[in-house]
Amino acid sequence: MYIKNPHLKKILEKYRQIVTLGQIDAVLGWDLNVNLPPKSVEGRARQSAAMTELIAKQWLDPELKKLLENVREDAAKLLPVEKAILRNLEREGKLYFKAPTELVVEKSKTVAQAYVAWQKARQENNISDFFPSLKKIVELDRLIAEHLGFSENPYDALLDLFEPELKVSDYQKIFTPLQKELKAMIKKITASRGYRGKTDLGDGELNFPADEQRQLALYLLKKMGFDWESGRMDISAHPFTTQLDRYDIRITNRYKPEDFIGSLMVAMHEGGHALYEQGVNPDFDLTPLGGGVSLSIHESQSRFWENQVGHDFEFIEFLTPLLQAFYQEQLGRTGSEFLGRLLNRVRPGPLRIEADEVTYNLHIILRFELENALVNKQLEVEDLPAAWAKKMQHYLGIIPASDREGVLQDVHWAYGSFGYFPSYTLGNLYAAQIAAKMKQELPLDNLLKHGELGTILSWLRDNIHQYGSLYWPREIIKRVSGEDLNPDYFLSYLKRKYGEVYNVKL
Amino acid sequence: MYIKNPHLKKILEKYRQIVTLGQIDAVLGWDLNVNLPPKSVEGRARQSAAMTELIAKQWLDPELKKLLENVREDAAKLLPVEKAILRNLEREGKLYFKAPTELVVEKSKTVAQAYVAWQKARQENNISDFFPSLKKIVELDRLIAEHLGFSENPYDALLDLFEPELKVSDYQKIFTPLQKELKAMIKKITASRGYRGKTDLGDGELNFPADEQRQLALYLLKKMGFDWESGRMDISAHPFTTQLDRYDIRITNRYKPEDFIGSLMVAMHEGGHALYEQGVNPDFDLTPLGGGVSLSIHESQSRFWENQVGHDFEFIEFLTPLLQAFYQEQLGRTGSEFLGRLLNRVRPGPLRIEADEVTYNLHIILRFELENALVNKQLEVEDLPAAWAKKMQHYLGIIPASDREGVLQDVHWAYGSFGYFPSYTLGNLYAAQIAAKMKQELPLDNLLKHGELGTILSWLRDNIHQYGSLYWPREIIKRVSGEDLNPDYFLSYLKRKYGEVYNVKL
Repeated sequence: MYIKNPHLKKILEKYRQIVTLGQIDAVLGWDLNVNLPPKSVEGRARQSAAMTELIAKQWLDPELKKLLENVREDAAKLLPVEKAILRNLEREGKLYFKAPTELVVEKSKTVAQAYVAWQKARQENNISDFFPSLKKIVELDRLIAEHLGFSENPYDALLDLFEPELKVSDYQKIFTPLQKELKAMIKKITASRGYRGKTDLGDGELNFPADEQRQLALYLLKKMGFDWESGRMDISAHPFTTQLDRYDIRITNRYKPEDFIGSLMVAMHEGGHALYEQGVNPDFDLTPLGGGVSLSIHESQSRFWENQVGHDFEFIEFLTPLLQAFYQEQLGRTGSEFLGRLLNRVRPGPLRIEADEVTYNLHIILRFELENALVNKQLEVEDLPAAWAKKMQHYLGIIPASDREGVLQDVHWAYGSFGYFPSYTLGNLYAAQIAAKMKQELPLDNLLKHGELGTILSWLRDNIHQYGSLYWPREIIKRVSGEDLNPDYFLSYLKRKYGEVYNVKL
Repeated sequence: MYIKNPHLKKILEKYRQIVTLGQIDAVLGWDLNVNLPPKSVEGRARQSAAMTELIAKQWLDPELKKLLENVREDAAKLLPVEKAILRNLEREGKLYFKAPTELVVEKSKTVAQAYVAWQKARQENNISDFFPSLKKIVELDRLIAEHLGFSENPYDALLDLFEPELKVSDYQKIFTPLQKELKAMIKKITASRGYRGKTDLGDGELNFPADEQRQLALYLLKKMGFDWESGRMDISAHPFTTQLDRYDIRITNRYKPEDFIGSLMVAMHEGGHALYEQGVNPDFDLTPLGGGVSLSIHESQSRFWENQVGHDFEFIEFLTPLLQAFYQEQLGRTGSEFLGRLLNRVRPGPLRIEADEVTYNLHIILRFELENALVNKQLEVEDLPAAWAKKMQHYLGIIPASDREGVLQDVHWAYGSFGYFPSYTLGNLYAAQIAAKMKQELPLDNLLKHGELGTILSWLRDNIHQYGSLYWPREIIKRVSGEDLNPDYFLSYLKRKYGEVYNVKL
């Protein structure tokens, strides 16, 4: 990568240190979730806080500030790649440049405590244990939004931390028609004859040993193109992907004895994130162009593998003999047709992570609306459970049996990640748009039927992965598909697929 | 812990940060050995180097320097505990205060490369691959010794980094009579009738599954008093113990299918290190009084559990029914008498880590003499293999079949740890001295016979562990045993035990 601007060259040297410290913090985070002995939670929080402060210090280095000013002055003369670097630097450093350090540190400490409070509240199904932390997070996030600045809505500023270029009003333009369409589909599906058919494996007493689930997941990831010399798969309560180094991308999984599909889909989902990171142009390593460009594009990759591949009927046909060989006793002669229906079962339910493709985005829209209300002081933290229940009733016809199945189900708010959720839905929409384009260029159905995932990965590498963070989401999707984000691809995909599954016109 | 001196109070605040950064580096180190994907070796080296630099920066903080000067001025008025803290600070910071930072960083980078070179050289049994790194380490260590300062021998300065208060001449006073006694013992043992008796389990085709070895090791560690909420046991090529936090002490083990004893002894050895750390007065956490006081006292604990407990005939009697139950098929009716002989077999061999209690210290003395010669330029790196072979022949009557069984067998030199080895022998000597004292106060044989290890741990906690680094080795051993280091305890122990095993007057 050729860099001409001398100030930017110096900045890139400093940035290497920032990335390195971030990677070290990622090691701490991975280990926290995978290995930490219970009594050491406080110690790990202290260690992570130290890293947060060191990273903040790097961003606030006066020399960096001065160099950035110099580069901004040269902005007009920058090469395209230099412009991309500057743009990403501004974005990544934004929180540090605009919010007071004390506020950033305060947030990080609050979040550490909130996580513990959330865990306890969730375990004991006692949400009032979590209210104080959540209130504080909302207050801090409002303050942070003020410092970051916004023109229309303070929530815009928070959304922007996770996904560039989109405001509340943009999301609303996408979400309003989307939720109407989804609600209409769900109504038709749940009223269909197929909805009442048998789509489970029996009495729920089947046992799929963890070892075998893991072997299958490893096989599938290998088939997808995961580089096992540059990564691992371990166990954690909540699956995730993390980058400890360009050549150390780790995913986690969990193995429920009764559910052999779950760990496979987790493997494909997290594998999708990991393959994105493993496929970035190595020239971008340790620069602001390294790594995936945004949460939504990242999620487009994980959802592509999980849904467009993993839940595809052709692919399930490919997978079935293997599943039958692994689980001869449990599956018997259960065929691919039945497994396809099992994986593509639509069931409105209270839990986001268990939601199917049709209902999933309504879970997200609900959270988006509640976050917007909280940040804009139209809703108080104490009133969340009631508001949640009302919206669940409205969107999915469901009232959660407990807060554990409601407000407490996700970790995101305990992590202080207000503004994160909408990127999941963007990811779903992008995934369908990407798949539609891929189908024009590749015999996708045929590849899936024969498990030729390598060709798919190559296409994703060529069109998306290699660029890392060089192009922003809007640009990358335009380059890939020739147009802006277009939710129609997702809706057509759902209508076609689930129309067939439930034999109903959607 | 009451601290009166205001400057020292401020230093302790800064020291917390130093400990925290050190713990983070320990997380990186643990993960490197237990989890790291192969392609990420460079990335991890970069991350560790960043931590090394950050830690060095903390030690070189001008404010800390000034505060230390202030405390030194107040030295006469310090409370005893404050004096201990100052003494430990001076010792721990010595390398940073006296050697130029560039030299420290250069050493750390050299060591990272040396480790890779050593691994390769060892794997391919090609020592010349390792010579350049080793030469550089010796050169850097000579420079470091010059900066640290010494009155008699540059090797003194390096030894002092690992173990305070002892010089080359002190070690020689201990080692010279020790090696004579050990050589004489070995001569008698190898000439005895018992030496030619059968002491193995047969044709070497026995298979002890890793899972069962792990279960036994976990059981034994629990019996020793290991707190599983404050630690873990994982797998690594070379077993080690590390402290990631006061409540996160991790040990590693390895399971060879043919050797069920090895993993048990590793568990007891590393468990001995871990219990020491877990037993330190919690008031000392994150201060210079936290953690074990020195390598030799640490090794006294690991060797105590491994040898004085694990290799004891009474304890093996306790353990035998359990081993028989676990390994019914493999062991059959093999009784405790035979297992005792198996564990306490004396066999001069080329490898230190496989050495028995009688030959072990000769491996150490050999390394001590070679290190001394290298640091004093009486020996060149290229001449090491020949010098090694000569000394092996002299001390153990053995010529190593290859460098892999010679110079390349240990990682210590690749780690740049010149001066480390002698503390192993000190540990052995201390362990015997401690055991002798314990026997005066506890019915040790009876406790071992009944596997009542909790009483033993309590005694060690009361007499050693709780003090952390409050007392230096010389003082702690005097407090425990009422006298200075006295190798006679170790020699009497060997003579008594192995005289019986081989039915010969030693």
